[in-house]
Amino acid sequence: MVHQQMASQEITVAYLGPAGSYTHQAALGKFGNSVTYHPQATIDDVFKFVEEKHTTYGVVPFENSTFGSVVTTLDRLVSSKTQIIGEAYLEVNHNLLAKSNIKSVKRIYSHPQAFGQCRKWINTHLKGAQCIDASSTSRAAELAASESASAAISSIVCAELYGLNVLEKDIQDLRGNKTRFFILGNSPSGSTGDDRTLLLFTVDHRKPGALCDCLKTFKDHNINLTKIDSRPSLQRQWNYVFFVEFEGHKDDSNVRMSLNDIGEYCLGLTVLGSYSNKRTED
Amino acid sequence: MVHQQMASQEITVAYLGPAGSYTHQAALGKFGNSVTYHPQATIDDVFKFVEEKHTTYGVVPFENSTFGSVVTTLDRLVSSKTQIIGEAYLEVNHNLLAKSNIKSVKRIYSHPQAFGQCRKWINTHLKGAQCIDASSTSRAAELAASESASAAISSIVCAELYGLNVLEKDIQDLRGNKTRFFILGNSPSGSTGDDRTLLLFTVDHRKPGALCDCLKTFKDHNINLTKIDSRPSLQRQWNYVFFVEFEGHKDDSNVRMSLNDIGEYCLGLTVLGSYSNKRTED
Repeated sequence: MVHQQMASQEITVAYLGPAGSYTHQAALGKFGNSVTYHPQATIDDVFKFVEEKHTTYGVVPFENSTFGSVVTTLDRLVSSKTQIIGEAYLEVNHNLLAKSNIKSVKRIYSHPQAFGQCRKWINTHLKGAQCIDASSTSRAAELAASESASAAISSIVCAELYGLNVLEKDIQDLRGNKTRFFILGNSPSGSTGDDRTLLLFTVDHRKPGALCDCLKTFKDHNINLTKIDSRPSLQRQWNYVFFVEFEGHKDDSNVRMSLNDIGEYCLGLTVLGSYSNKRTED
Repeated sequence: MVHQQMASQEITVAYLGPAGSYTHQAALGKFGNSVTYHPQATIDDVFKFVEEKHTTYGVVPFENSTFGSVVTTLDRLVSSKTQIIGEAYLEVNHNLLAKSNIKSVKRIYSHPQAFGQCRKWINTHLKGAQCIDASSTSRAAELAASESASAAISSIVCAELYGLNVLEKDIQDLRGNKTRFFILGNSPSGSTGDDRTLLLFTVDHRKPGALCDCLKTFKDHNINLTKIDSRPSLQRQWNYVFFVEFEGHKDDSNVRMSLNDIGEYCLGLTVLGSYSNKRTED
């Protein structure tokens, strides 16, 4: 675990809160109970806390196996001054929590990602209800606890924490629904022999095949890509920034050769971090 | 315009409604006033209406220049039985509309995409307000019109349509904010000499370089890629479907060669449609 490297210092961890969020649970799984936690209201605040060195580490959601990438995290990575130094996976089982019963539910609070992971269930069982965005699923539970006709889509942990009844368990559309989190820090992680790296770059849109040329540098050095995302560049309309994740550490010799080659074809290349691969195939 | 090809028949168009939505405005720009419109409550309903041949065409939002792809449309394209037969662009200027004044606004209704396009403005001017998802920005205006402490982020057209005051104009984070729409139909469009094509495919994740091999087939035939998206495949965890858009029509000879080549490297290749390129560079 990351914190074993720093056992002699006080370790502090910012996460997307409040207490009981899935990000909190992922953080607890990674760092345990012997560190000090600082819940934050937004993903942006977690990045800022680490960038301004208020905490040693930060934990943010990155990707869900059903509903895909967390765009707030992708967009914030573009201006990030931190490094991604680790990842964590959590099996996510959503529940409908409320003070009252399902018949009186007029409003549902949750994070947009959780709504996306329970789309079919909501459309079948609570089609008329208002879906109200909360900054996290635990914040949703906190809000639902203060209103009689409201429910939250949230974790089972939050039922006890915020004094809510579990009206329905496991309402996510797919079984084995998992979320992947990034651990942010200020010092890069060393190579472990089984790592992944996330890159950010853009390409000259006037050059046909530019993205292909970029990706080919990985193939040339026998590096397997694991994920590609694109987001609007915001510099030029209908141009994109690309997030490419691959197997290997930025200090591995084949990765270094590939990063050297890719510089010829892309613009604004940034290594967002290398981290030990924690994915386990089911 | 598309409907000129079918002037002698009655043309019907389903769109993401209710009346006054940006999709409605895009549809009016494309088809004018001489066709019959059928507003739908959801993007899924627009696809269904066209698939079941209740209407000749359908119009759905696809991508915004600030906040990126509309994931509901991407996810629905995977099971689509329609063809993309056209595209339309609309400059999108969001406004804060309400019955009352800005000080009494406790809740804001809008579409998640519009919230994403006004993130900075909301965080600066209405940080404490609840953001409540609506199925479209015009539905948001309809909801705000029935509640005193609520506002909508919506188009100026909806202010008059739903009897709301314009509390603040042009609240989108970037000027020149544009949304791109797809026209759905049941018969493919012919080649115009300046077209684009959208493909859907997945790759064998165990083959290193498989995505690169796919993209290289376009480069080999001198075809320029204009966009790439990935979404969870939902067939296997942490596997993705890819949406690749490129310049050219599926019947062009170089595109046909490329589609023939790509079949060697990808799985589940589907041509979602070819359509006349309506993008104008600013």
